[in-house]
Amino acid sequence: MSGTSTSPALFRLGRLLRACEPLERGVVSLVGAGPGDPGLLTIKAARRLGEADVVYHDALVSDEILTLCTPGARLVPVGKRRGAVTMPQEAIVDAMAQDAARGLAVVRLKGGDPFVFGRGGEEALALLERGVSFEIVSGVSSGIAVPASAGIPVTHRGVAGSVAFVTAHDAADPAVRSRLSHLAQGADTIVIFMAGTELPGVARALLEAGLPGSTAAAVIESGTRAEQRVSRGTLDRLGMLGGSPANGPVLAVVGRTVALGDLLRAEPEHRSAAEEASAHA
Amino acid sequence: MSGTSTSPALFRLGRLLRACEPLERGVVSLVGAGPGDPGLLTIKAARRLGEADVVYHDALVSDEILTLCTPGARLVPVGKRRGAVTMPQEAIVDAMAQDAARGLAVVRLKGGDPFVFGRGGEEALALLERGVSFEIVSGVSSGIAVPASAGIPVTHRGVAGSVAFVTAHDAADPAVRSRLSHLAQGADTIVIFMAGTELPGVARALLEAGLPGSTAAAVIESGTRAEQRVSRGTLDRLGMLGGSPANGPVLAVVGRTVALGDLLRAEPEHRSAAEEASAHA
Repeated sequence: MSGTSTSPALFRLGRLLRACEPLERGVVSLVGAGPGDPGLLTIKAARRLGEADVVYHDALVSDEILTLCTPGARLVPVGKRRGAVTMPQEAIVDAMAQDAARGLAVVRLKGGDPFVFGRGGEEALALLERGVSFEIVSGVSSGIAVPASAGIPVTHRGVAGSVAFVTAHDAADPAVRSRLSHLAQGADTIVIFMAGTELPGVARALLEAGLPGSTAAAVIESGTRAEQRVSRGTLDRLGMLGGSPANGPVLAVVGRTVALGDLLRAEPEHRSAAEEASAHA
Repeated sequence: MSGTSTSPALFRLGRLLRACEPLERGVVSLVGAGPGDPGLLTIKAARRLGEADVVYHDALVSDEILTLCTPGARLVPVGKRRGAVTMPQEAIVDAMAQDAARGLAVVRLKGGDPFVFGRGGEEALALLERGVSFEIVSGVSSGIAVPASAGIPVTHRGVAGSVAFVTAHDAADPAVRSRLSHLAQGADTIVIFMAGTELPGVARALLEAGLPGSTAAAVIESGTRAEQRVSRGTLDRLGMLGGSPANGPVLAVVGRTVALGDLLRAEPEHRSAAEEASAHA
């Protein structure tokens, strides 16, 4: 798409942008920013950023995405970065409710999707308690797009007919371990969000539930971003595959579709190489 | 966003549109169209549609989304509509591979996300077998955005720490039922795609696994579209909640977060009404 051909495409996109319902003043829009790649932002999210008087955004939201805000918008970084909370949850909701009550157009911009481990439901309920209306603008979930960016389909006909999303929290809790154990037997693909220091505990629970140690697994840091780093291996080595939350969001995937990632890297050459390797194995 | 204020917003959006890597000729781009609402299309998907010489699209993709194609692009409807297959899977892949080999920019536009029950992985592998490169452009998954459009968060702190996506296929198969039974005990929220005639079988499997009949459940037809229809109830009545695939895509959700949908409909008045009702119950 060269400079000359961009204009008509942008003109057509403008029609969809204008077709989105406008953000009412006094309403808080809880918007998913997608997994990182600014191209995976939705049209409606772009429109909301262009309408907002104030944007409360997760620290990990790309700077490129924030360029969609009007020059006069107030940008408030909130949420966690490298473990440090910049603004407590209660304070975020209070500030948004106050801005909305003043008649401002308020956007709460969250990484991924607001309803997938994004505390969107919590913030929505807290806003309602304060008499403030909200809307949800769904985003591309990291749980799907980050594996995809490593060539891993979370479902695949004949290989994985189900997928589960969990977080790597409280893996030491017996109730959490029992549920993980059922997921190990019920879900073909398991996507683990916020896969930081508790990842070894999750891996142990899945192994104890009977998943073979040879089950394909991957850890993906900063998925869909330029600095993306993918470590591939097996479940028994999942805890050692690395991935430090200090460097960006970390996601782990366990299941047979992970092995498809060796083939599905968009280059036919890769497949031939893999086939050749397996022929020589 | 009035006519006058749209231009600068569109100008800023244009920068992100141009920042997406161009689609190479001879490559097939497998693009997620999102759940239906054209506003939930991604920027990169919009760019791909503007670049494509030919677009193979699912029958259910909104006409508004297809307006993003250049006037000269060839649009080929494929996939199922009301149970009728318009083009067999093998023929779709063959046609795309031929177009790519001729040096065309080819887009395969799929509802939701290409890797979530979208056969994206399958088509990608089939393209590689034919020596054709592909890319994946992730989309907003119906499994998350459709419940959200009914006010249902698929995860919610303290209520649902995990979510599983399954299809309502083969519920009579003992192996499928066994896995569903583990999911009933392992996943807090269960999202059932393609919830058509086999939904009663899925519901029975979940009940047999020990999920209480009083577990909140909802069936959503044509989610995120103007014609969206939501039926709320409980698991023991899931099979009767209706939802005919003849009217559009049908998705079912089972779990405690479904009950939050009564509160989370973006209007503080709803909450007061719900509270009042429970106070009088």
